Amino acid sequence: MSEAEKRLEELGIALPEVPKPVANYVPWVKSGNQLYVSGQLPFKDGKLLHMGLTGEGVSADEAKSCARQCAINIIAVVHGAVGLSNVRRVVKLVGFVACPASFTGQPGVINGASDLMAEVFGEAGRHARSAVGVGSLPLNAPVEIEAIFEVA
Amino acid sequence: MSEAEKRLEELGIALPEVPKPVANYVPWVKSGNQLYVSGQLPFKDGKLLHMGLTGEGVSADEAKSCARQCAINIIAVVHGAVGLSNVRRVVKLVGFVACPASFTGQPGVINGASDLMAEVFGEAGRHARSAVGVGSLPLNAPVEIEAIFEVA
Amino acid sequence: MSEAEKRLEELGIALPEVPKPVANYVPWVKSGNQLYVSGQLPFKDGKLLHMGLTGEGVSADEAKSCARQCAINIIAVVHGAVGLSNVRRVVKLVGFVACPASFTGQPGVINGASDLMAEVFGEAGRHARSAVGVGSLPLNAPVEIEAIFEVA
Repeated sequence: MSEAEKRLEELGIALPEVPKPVANYVPWVKSGNQLYVSGQLPFKDGKLLHMGLTGEGVSADEAKSCARQCAINIIAVVHGAVGLSNVRRVVKLVGFVACPASFTGQPGVINGASDLMAEVFGEAGRHARSAVGVGSLPLNAPVEIEAIFEVA
Repeated sequence: MSEAEKRLEELGIALPEVPKPVANYVPWVKSGNQLYVSGQLPFKDGKLLHMGLTGEGVSADEAKSCARQCAINIIAVVHGAVGLSNVRRVVKLVGFVACPASFTGQPGVINGASDLMAEVFGEAGRHARSAVGVGSLPLNAPVEIEAIFEVA
Repeated sequence: MSEAEKRLEELGIALPEVPKPVANYVPWVKSGNQLYVSGQLPFKDGKLLHMGLTGEGVSADEAKSCARQCAINIIAVVHGAVGLSNVRRVVKLVGFVACPASFTGQPGVINGASDLMAEVFGEAGRHARSAVGVGSLPLNAPVEIEAIFEVA
């Protein structure tokens, strides 16, 4: 069991099954030493954790827990793709937060994902990041996060 | 003629000329084995295929055809850059859909691009992807798509 | 002093200190020959140059100067990370412009960053790019820009 898997166990996080792709895109592509993970939504047990706009129907705290769930799903994809023991570094996250123009706390929301990466991967989990607010996201999700990992 | 060019011919798609850049950015940059393609708008014969917001003035189907046109323009850039026979893999697409907050069907729209990549490049056309809804796009375009390819 | 540093001096630009990260993400990550720079806001001397939406409270010209400031901050990060003499190429910028749906001049805004890259790095400063309009950005900033550089 890799260090990251031990940390997940200590955190009480069981990685979900990665759903089979239903369209002409896939959850991940490996190019050289880089693993590109498709934008993940906050699905848990087949349902979105919350739905709606952050700062309107969804609170900043709920959106932050969505960001954490997106990160869990990203880690599940990486685990299925190459195994967590082959992760060298979380390179980058881009976090999209669905919100009205009045909401400007995107960094705090996306910290839900950034914090989990650090908890699971330690120093190797610290990443470059962008956080932006968008008008809407697929299926009315409040958060979507994509990632690039460096792998062995 | 490469396999991808044959597929384009079978699909009746003639690749457009890539417009000369008019600013200090360029349609593509090659870095190692990765080709980064600038965000493409649904231009056809010098005009946007549709203008406006998806789910308002532009229907989801019209936006999907815009996504397909963006993909044609991306393929044209790649052809001009390195030649389609040097494509190893479509690594990633990011699809931005201009829409009001009430529209949450971004994945269906961006499938217009994903499907074309699979039609033209086969297995090598299946890519990682993010699809998000944004408030507005350059020149009032309903869709903008950027891409990363792995090339020989 | 590298050529890029000479150009900055001629342009009268002093690179700011890069703020220490206060969260579990970092201003940059190097992966192979690629340097990923986190999304930068138009901070100058610890304050945002302008606040609000482009085309509403913030003019297109003011937003363009924000984009230039984002580019200065990106260059400061790169300088601190690897030194400007190790820059081989600006690979890509993604520019997010906070604006209402009625504003469609994102390319002109992001030219503020693209032009500076060309002024500082010459031919090596010409990059792939996407420019999109979003509903809101962290701390009510009108512009956020992220970057990928190729470095030695």
